[in-house]
Amino acid sequence: MTNTVEPSPKKAKTSASLRDGFMAVYDQLKAEIVADLDSLSMPEATKKYIARMVDYNVPGGKLNRGLTVASVVQSMHIGKAVPEDTIVKAHMLGWCIEWLQAFFLVADDVMDASITRRGQPCWYKLPEVGLNAVNDSIILEAHIFHILRRHFKTHPAYVTLMELFMDVTYRTEIGQLLDLTSQEKDVVDLDKFTLDTYKRIVKYKTAFYSFYLPVACGMILSGVADEAHLKLAEEICLDMGEYFQIQDDVLDCYGAPEVIGKIGTDIQDNKCSWLVVTALSKASAEQKAILKANYAKHDPACVAKVKEVYAALDLKSVFNEYESESYARISERINKITNVPHAVFTDLLAKIYKRQK
Amino acid sequence: MTNTVEPSPKKAKTSASLRDGFMAVYDQLKAEIVADLDSLSMPEATKKYIARMVDYNVPGGKLNRGLTVASVVQSMHIGKAVPEDTIVKAHMLGWCIEWLQAFFLVADDVMDASITRRGQPCWYKLPEVGLNAVNDSIILEAHIFHILRRHFKTHPAYVTLMELFMDVTYRTEIGQLLDLTSQEKDVVDLDKFTLDTYKRIVKYKTAFYSFYLPVACGMILSGVADEAHLKLAEEICLDMGEYFQIQDDVLDCYGAPEVIGKIGTDIQDNKCSWLVVTALSKASAEQKAILKANYAKHDPACVAKVKEVYAALDLKSVFNEYESESYARISERINKITNVPHAVFTDLLAKIYKRQK
Ligand SMILES: [Mg+2]
Ligand SMILES: [Mg+2]
Ligand SMILES: [Mg+2]
Ligand SMILES: [Mg+2]
Ligand SMILES: [Mg+2]
Ligand SMILES: [Mg+2]
Repeated sequence: MTNTVEPSPKKAKTSASLRDGFMAVYDQLKAEIVADLDSLSMPEATKKYIARMVDYNVPGGKLNRGLTVASVVQSMHIGKAVPEDTIVKAHMLGWCIEWLQAFFLVADDVMDASITRRGQPCWYKLPEVGLNAVNDSIILEAHIFHILRRHFKTHPAYVTLMELFMDVTYRTEIGQLLDLTSQEKDVVDLDKFTLDTYKRIVKYKTAFYSFYLPVACGMILSGVADEAHLKLAEEICLDMGEYFQIQDDVLDCYGAPEVIGKIGTDIQDNKCSWLVVTALSKASAEQKAILKANYAKHDPACVAKVKEVYAALDLKSVFNEYESESYARISERINKITNVPHAVFTDLLAKIYKRQK
Repeated sequence: MTNTVEPSPKKAKTSASLRDGFMAVYDQLKAEIVADLDSLSMPEATKKYIARMVDYNVPGGKLNRGLTVASVVQSMHIGKAVPEDTIVKAHMLGWCIEWLQAFFLVADDVMDASITRRGQPCWYKLPEVGLNAVNDSIILEAHIFHILRRHFKTHPAYVTLMELFMDVTYRTEIGQLLDLTSQEKDVVDLDKFTLDTYKRIVKYKTAFYSFYLPVACGMILSGVADEAHLKLAEEICLDMGEYFQIQDDVLDCYGAPEVIGKIGTDIQDNKCSWLVVTALSKASAEQKAILKANYAKHDPACVAKVKEVYAALDLKSVFNEYESESYARISERINKITNVPHAVFTDLLAKIYKRQK
């Protein structure tokens, strides 16, 4: 989820003040977590460690997931001002999602032996942290439920929110398991890369927490929490989540590095990307052999050969067609929705449609 | 928590049938978790992976924590038979505690680079697992809340139970952080080993989940869930937890290997054990120097020198005195309790008093 490429000045201003409010809530939540440690008589060093760990891992991303909760709440209040207290509550749930993401990423970087994250060394790579990061990641997870308990204990949706976060957490962990076991360690076996496998990983590992969770939080906070509405929202959000990840995979290969902010390495890293999955489903025996011989190699000549096959199969056009179809399909689904303002979904879709980063 | 050294035949029989019932509930809970994956359309391989992961890590311990919930419930029903349904519910909570322990141990073994656990290789040491164990551990944690949701959703104490498990989880993670940061990596610095530090680590890392949690579950299930009663129970349980861990440390050095089932290595492993903490607090400058020169070394001659200092300081007698005082202090606390049958605590205390393993 990124901003539109050319946001209108008005929209940009709104997001800037929304972002300021969002950051102010972060400061509050972090201060409360540190103060909690005082009530457990924890030593200064422990309080400092946790404060630094939270600062290092929670607020440094693009914050789109977290900001979406308040956007959804605003869309739910057509023609009415949203009470300040409701925006603050939305920001709190937004931060729960950012905390959840931090929990996943700290652990994921350990499992993937990654080096950098958000332009700084991965948390576990700091010499004074190391594998303590495993415990730190689950401390971040525990903070979510402390935030919910402190700020939503008397809210009518308290149990619904707790169950939502637990459920999405479990689904994401199952998605991570699917991802981790989709390839044997250090074995390159492209036969395992099928579109079904790909879609299942994306749905569980990414779409639930990135798209469904912020929308569901906004709906629940607005009092639209019945199962039927949430189910419809889930279907649309999972569809968008898949589209978003496919864009991500395409940008990794074809995006402008100066725009996306990194040089993609999915081919070298043996990633189960939409591009390789789609290529394999369309390739001739000869092209398949080229893919198998050159995928997952760090040699630039091998990467170039993979990209030649992608070009010969005209994957850019396949993607453009997929993108148009997705937009039409998602829009159609949104149009069938009654009782939830369409802006909840169309704003989200507008933010990702044809994104370049 | 182990059985008494010489259990009466009647008591032993009761525990055997209690254990059978407990194991039957495990089979049910595991089957439900696997069936859940069906409802998410997960592939056979994923279901098998999770079933094996649960079997490998959850039920293989001594199960004392888990069995304690039903024992507490039985103690709460003085002179009345406990309804079968209540025992089953108690076993479910007992398994939540065993699942929690599995979650901690799988992650702890990764962080400690341990080799074996419960007589088999640590889960992460299996070649097909490796660092996937980090994700597996948090899947085990998620199962706890799935069990609570499935079986306690309509129970009046549903929210209390969820909050209890979340709170104890967080406290244990903070205890793990205290433990991990009590020593710099690969640095031996005995000056950091103080009795205050030791007690804080034990309280948070061990006592809450091992002693307070099973008792609190039993009390809540019996309808005694007000804060004042739980607070009194907490004080007694944390006191017992500290005593239990100190016994553990003493048995590591002085226990009979054929009885405790392993050869202790706390001295070699630079553990912040009650023995070294106590020795440091009583040692002469000369004895301190011997400890500093020989602690945390894998050379048997060094281990022997440390044990000589322990002997010179007569730590066995110091422990015996501590044990008598603890027993008296805990018993006195129990005697002040009204409205909770004393057997809840005295049974637990009897199980650990003067234990040899
Ligand atoms: Mg990764
Ligand atoms: Mg990963
Ligand atoms: Mg990518
Ligand atoms: Mg360990
Ligand atoms: Mg450890
Ligand atoms: Mg020990």
